[in-house]
Amino acid sequence: MSEQALRETIRRVALEAKQAARRLAQASTEQKHAALKAMADSLRAARQEIASANAADVEAARQSRLPSAMVDRLILNEKRFEEMVASVEAVAALPDPVGEVIRKWKRPNGLSIEKVRVPLGVIGIIYESRPDVTSDCAALCLKSGNAVVLRGGAEAFQSNRAIATVLQRAISRAGLPAAAVSCLPTPERAGVDLMLQMDDAIDVIIPRGGEALIRKVVETSKIPVIKHAKGVCHVYVDDAADLAMAQRIAFNAKCQRPATCNAMETLLVHQRVAPQWLPPMVRQLQQAGVEIRGCERTRALVGGLTAATEGDWSAEYLDLILSVKIVDSLDEAIEHISRYGSAHSDAIVTTHHARAMRFLHEVDSACVYVNASTRFTDGFQFGLGAEIGISTDKLHARGPMGLEELTTYKYIVFGDGQLRE
Amino acid sequence: MSEQALRETIRRVALEAKQAARRLAQASTEQKHAALKAMADSLRAARQEIASANAADVEAARQSRLPSAMVDRLILNEKRFEEMVASVEAVAALPDPVGEVIRKWKRPNGLSIEKVRVPLGVIGIIYESRPDVTSDCAALCLKSGNAVVLRGGAEAFQSNRAIATVLQRAISRAGLPAAAVSCLPTPERAGVDLMLQMDDAIDVIIPRGGEALIRKVVETSKIPVIKHAKGVCHVYVDDAADLAMAQRIAFNAKCQRPATCNAMETLLVHQRVAPQWLPPMVRQLQQAGVEIRGCERTRALVGGLTAATEGDWSAEYLDLILSVKIVDSLDEAIEHISRYGSAHSDAIVTTHHARAMRFLHEVDSACVYVNASTRFTDGFQFGLGAEIGISTDKLHARGPMGLEELTTYKYIVFGDGQLRE
Repeated sequence: MSEQALRETIRRVALEAKQAARRLAQASTEQKHAALKAMADSLRAARQEIASANAADVEAARQSRLPSAMVDRLILNEKRFEEMVASVEAVAALPDPVGEVIRKWKRPNGLSIEKVRVPLGVIGIIYESRPDVTSDCAALCLKSGNAVVLRGGAEAFQSNRAIATVLQRAISRAGLPAAAVSCLPTPERAGVDLMLQMDDAIDVIIPRGGEALIRKVVETSKIPVIKHAKGVCHVYVDDAADLAMAQRIAFNAKCQRPATCNAMETLLVHQRVAPQWLPPMVRQLQQAGVEIRGCERTRALVGGLTAATEGDWSAEYLDLILSVKIVDSLDEAIEHISRYGSAHSDAIVTTHHARAMRFLHEVDSACVYVNASTRFTDGFQFGLGAEIGISTDKLHARGPMGLEELTTYKYIVFGDGQLRE
Repeated sequence: MSEQALRETIRRVALEAKQAARRLAQASTEQKHAALKAMADSLRAARQEIASANAADVEAARQSRLPSAMVDRLILNEKRFEEMVASVEAVAALPDPVGEVIRKWKRPNGLSIEKVRVPLGVIGIIYESRPDVTSDCAALCLKSGNAVVLRGGAEAFQSNRAIATVLQRAISRAGLPAAAVSCLPTPERAGVDLMLQMDDAIDVIIPRGGEALIRKVVETSKIPVIKHAKGVCHVYVDDAADLAMAQRIAFNAKCQRPATCNAMETLLVHQRVAPQWLPPMVRQLQQAGVEIRGCERTRALVGGLTAATEGDWSAEYLDLILSVKIVDSLDEAIEHISRYGSAHSDAIVTTHHARAMRFLHEVDSACVYVNASTRFTDGFQFGLGAEIGISTDKLHARGPMGLEELTTYKYIVFGDGQLRE
């Protein structure tokens, strides 16, 4: 496609989404519910159509020798397909966040002010590989009254387009505008850059993916961005910890699902308990296949470990690798997290109340834990019912983002002739 | 200053602010209150020092032949100085937003989750001319536990530096870090650009000023921005309006203080009431010195008016100028506002309930009014106690921004050994 044609195409998609957003903002809970049910039913009915598109993507990915982990994320097998449809049904069953009166008050001059929850408008989502993200995001945005413009990875282009086409037909049959959900109509990289310039049509960009993707989006976008960036999560084992509990928590935080952003990447241990606690902990982790990269003191305590470099302290491994550091105090632990962490999720294990409270208040992360695994940072685990991701930003939404975080508010003011004096 | 030296200087300011923010976030309400009282007292005591600095700025501005309106905004006379100090005292008296438990719940697995209000961190504020903005912003940021890096207009550089120096001394004497408040140490334009790159130290940028300033900031900044952009505000007079009330509201919205962002810039009138209502309204406005720019139908009804051009419909005059358009219906009014408005503040005057509700829900502006002047969009008028400005963005804060809007939240999770399964 020529650059001019590409610009016009992307512009049309964005403006149609904006029109759709105006109608969606006025849609009733019942209308949105009907559309979501239709979306789930249509996905089930179009199973073969979607499977063929997905097979084409997977075949192309194999031929172009994509890493097998990426090919794996691309595959929409039977189980994943069912989970994808169930997830749309689950979103349908959630309460509608739109229209909630967040606060209401009256002024001395008689003005009555309501702060009311409303949709954001048009949400742009930029993501990689997994095609089930397409229908997840579509469902969450529609439920919260937003239109969505989706841009998945080029390698999942056929799958995403097939899913979006099915969803559009369903939405349209349910009486809402098909443009409530759209995919960029081309896998070209230039399409994203153009999309990120359309600040008169798109209200917010949510990038989900690796560091390079997110940095590029932040640098290019004229539209406000809510980053879903990396998680360099810590567990700090205090000298007053229940040591058996500390071992269970550290093991769970590292090994239960190491490829997630809320998995532990660095273990901090108070020097007083390190000699007793660390060697068996390291052995347990090694038996589970974890490679340990230790500070000097850790290596003096446990033989045969790789030395952690400066880069290890800020690395997000997303893998069975763990950096371990022995610290002299709670202060040193907090300093380390402040310096190297990514303000995502950090935990302390301790029985000492005052130290727990210091950690919880002084570690400036989206989620801080005492005596629990960092793996709980998740919209479902938090009870939000769903999540579009985990924000590592401080503005608008922090931590797990559910339906409420996909809304904003407006002030509705009722008067009877009030004038400003 | 060389570019290298400038970069190092700005970097040092930003990093010192970041350090200060960590201490401020832990400061008690009493400590912050004491600092705010000390700030007000020190300003009063340093009256002469500040007046001299201000006189130097004003003299330089006159010599460089700045427009007289700009010179006027620069002058810190006795009345403005007293208001500036009183405003710091008023902020001291407001409730502390930090530490509020916004929501608290328990999960089936026993995890207890608290969503707690915390400061944003370091706030960068970029503004023009008026030196009293310096102490206003410093007080609001300190009260909400944030450090602030201020960059006022180059023409107010001496005044701003004098005010900031006095505030820093007061904060330091009260036992909080002086770097809680800082001004960029140079009036050079390049300083702003460098500041906007420091996304590892500054958490949010709030630009207050003209369209050109805001556009530049949005395009340059790597840090999230909350825009305080223009207000193209409308009053729509429905055919079911109380016509006497409509006249009072339209006059107030245009004339009470035309240079503000919440003043009416376009008047929309239903064609059924226009013949009767519009001519005397136009006369009243003209007698108050307002220049009317009318649509064709308006000009057919009232002789001698300038024709409104396409550009008039999206103009923010901030002056005694008003565009007037006759519309056929509520739908046309809503369409016009959606197309040309700036989503700031818009009002309908009507006695018809269903039409009022349609306007309030379908006009997607930060503040929507029925039967009241748009001039009420203001932190004090809304009862927020103070405002740092009026956000025209949808993310994080919309409309008047008070202390709460200068905060974010974190999740504090209490466990007793919970693991993810």
